[in-house]
Amino acid sequence: MDKRLLVYNIGCLATPEGSSAKKGEEQGEITIRNNCHILIEGEKIVEIGDNPPGLERAFKDSETLNAQGRLVTPGLVDCHTHLVFGGWRHGELGLKLKGASYLEILASGGGILNSVEKTRQASFDGLFEKAYGLLDECLLYGVTTLEAKSGYGLTTESEIKCLEVMKKLNAEHPVDIVPTFMGAHAVPREHKESRDKFIALVRDETLPLVAEKGLARYCDIFCEKGAFSLDESRLVLSKAKALGMALKIHAEEITSMGGAALAAELGCVSAEHLIKIDETGIQAMSKAGVIAVCLPCTSFYLNEDFAPARQMIQSNVPVAVATDFNPGSNPNLNLQLAMSMACYKYKMLPGEILTAVTLNAAGAIGKGAELGTLEAGKQADILVWDTEDLDYIFYRYGSNLVNTVIKRGNIARRS
Amino acid sequence: MDKRLLVYNIGCLATPEGSSAKKGEEQGEITIRNNCHILIEGEKIVEIGDNPPGLERAFKDSETLNAQGRLVTPGLVDCHTHLVFGGWRHGELGLKLKGASYLEILASGGGILNSVEKTRQASFDGLFEKAYGLLDECLLYGVTTLEAKSGYGLTTESEIKCLEVMKKLNAEHPVDIVPTFMGAHAVPREHKESRDKFIALVRDETLPLVAEKGLARYCDIFCEKGAFSLDESRLVLSKAKALGMALKIHAEEITSMGGAALAAELGCVSAEHLIKIDETGIQAMSKAGVIAVCLPCTSFYLNEDFAPARQMIQSNVPVAVATDFNPGSNPNLNLQLAMSMACYKYKMLPGEILTAVTLNAAGAIGKGAELGTLEAGKQADILVWDTEDLDYIFYRYGSNLVNTVIKRGNIARRS
Repeated sequence: MDKRLLVYNIGCLATPEGSSAKKGEEQGEITIRNNCHILIEGEKIVEIGDNPPGLERAFKDSETLNAQGRLVTPGLVDCHTHLVFGGWRHGELGLKLKGASYLEILASGGGILNSVEKTRQASFDGLFEKAYGLLDECLLYGVTTLEAKSGYGLTTESEIKCLEVMKKLNAEHPVDIVPTFMGAHAVPREHKESRDKFIALVRDETLPLVAEKGLARYCDIFCEKGAFSLDESRLVLSKAKALGMALKIHAEEITSMGGAALAAELGCVSAEHLIKIDETGIQAMSKAGVIAVCLPCTSFYLNEDFAPARQMIQSNVPVAVATDFNPGSNPNLNLQLAMSMACYKYKMLPGEILTAVTLNAAGAIGKGAELGTLEAGKQADILVWDTEDLDYIFYRYGSNLVNTVIKRGNIARRS
Repeated sequence: MDKRLLVYNIGCLATPEGSSAKKGEEQGEITIRNNCHILIEGEKIVEIGDNPPGLERAFKDSETLNAQGRLVTPGLVDCHTHLVFGGWRHGELGLKLKGASYLEILASGGGILNSVEKTRQASFDGLFEKAYGLLDECLLYGVTTLEAKSGYGLTTESEIKCLEVMKKLNAEHPVDIVPTFMGAHAVPREHKESRDKFIALVRDETLPLVAEKGLARYCDIFCEKGAFSLDESRLVLSKAKALGMALKIHAEEITSMGGAALAAELGCVSAEHLIKIDETGIQAMSKAGVIAVCLPCTSFYLNEDFAPARQMIQSNVPVAVATDFNPGSNPNLNLQLAMSMACYKYKMLPGEILTAVTLNAAGAIGKGAELGTLEAGKQADILVWDTEDLDYIFYRYGSNLVNTVIKRGNIARRS
């Protein structure tokens, strides 16, 4: 028999239910269950039930965890990060605060191409160790699964290197990683005058190799003025689809250019950022069932507007919330802070946000059937919080209130 | 001889210098010293010097801490909190997010008077234990000294109770507390129709008793439309001054009504909030040397504007940054998050912010001669950070990068 773990004396269990992303009013309709227990066998939840006094005495031969009346939720899922890159860019901070433009920062040797250079130079082991430490931090803040995008290599070799780092991280670190290929993140320096060649490289060389090696579940592209056009995005994503990959798109972050409608047209699982999405884009996503991945920390860090998350919820678009952790436009990896910003800036309600960072985020990475809720049959990714009340997590923003992290049935971290 | 502690292999020591609050360009002119050590005897720094290889071998009989090349700064000072109160108010979160007005929240049993009721009902021990736990959290985020304001009791008895809780906390918890009497925080329910009587109570009964018992170093008042007028503020603060207390004032938060000029007129050590301060107020504070205590988390939490911190720095007003931790308008006690917001919303530079939460914050609570910098003779309140670079703390916002906290020469916390 698999190893059993009983989590008992749960004061309040809060979770969405089901296996597909929730939209509209359903996004906020989470299940609250008081005074209960969770029984885990191996990596899975096998039972959720009441907690009569002394329940734990019937589980003398199992491992037990006394939740002491606390709140328990599913583990958090960060469904949009750029986890693997070389170097950092804190050297640009002074320039940024003094109002330097994107071009001035590029000219000073900064910007995304700086990260590309450092990522190309970095060794496999160097990238692995750095990202491993960052995953430890994620776990500390309650993240048990995350999506990671490549896109700081921008050559076939270095993109593969980063995706292989993710594969090894997934095998060795408790946090699960879902890899996304984002070779079209920026046009690299050597292709500044030959962007068509770069797109051909991504489409006809790197993508097929990534697909052949099975290194990425998704293909993503930065569809934006100054990055890749709608047509270029269609070219790359269509090829990925033909190769059997599922699709994501960075859309409508800085300009409203139709990326959301393209997501609907191509059947993307998610469109991400969406600060400038318009009513047409929202309706297209709603009709096609595309998940909106909203990234409030990026808005905070760049002093951008906040995405119209409430409007999307009202229009029956399932909304997920993620960090967008990356070295340039959001160096914060604490998903709880993104949850706070979703609360105070998007005005999303606690139940809506819980769904956004569990079931809807799991849906955005194709894991809705396996995780994102606390139900029998799901993976045992569970958080015990230092409170009895879901609202309190949002209210006491800025404090890390995660008490215990259970990952695949094992206690991965206790505070 | 006092116990000695050697902190060695310091990669980068970053600190303001001196004993009085810094203003203008000097606010950002911190001292950076590479490859050095700090020697502590008892509770004080006795020496800061270079770090030749093997230095620690000369200190075999002393306690030693290897900083391993990390960044070291003074301990953080949170110079504006409302630490001691009964209950919490997360129950109001749903209403708040749905846009309920202040009056609707009051009508539902919420708002400040709810905290007043719970504070009056709370036992001394209950308040002590709760605040003790919160101080543990503050320490975790690198705060080694904080100011705490009364003002949730609003009767002589319950205000004294809260100030005595602070006195006991100061004696028993490693974090030092500087107590401020703020009996004029709101008009309590029982004086709704007799506000003059309430002001007379504060002025002629509570204040003299607080002064006699030596329970508060400062007197503060909420000078604001709907709270206390300029004339009422002058009445209360003048009495406090006559009783030998130093003065603070909550000014220009919601409306520009002259609180900053009043601070200058009365010789307040600090004026706090200042979101709506105008040029006249800034000039008055500049001329009188009043410290501006800016509270960016409150702006974030209430969706208010951000105080014009840059303009104040340019006008030679010394700027401090604090959390404003309290159960209503800012339940965040993580001062690092306030530092991040000062960076990204005020556009203050890392050096300016370091000064704002160390020397200038110490100045705002009358402790500039004792703490707030790393210099021989100062109290040994020291942080070791998980980085070698000051900018990185701000860049990696959202993560708690404090590695080790030294308080009065003792290692109070290690990560």
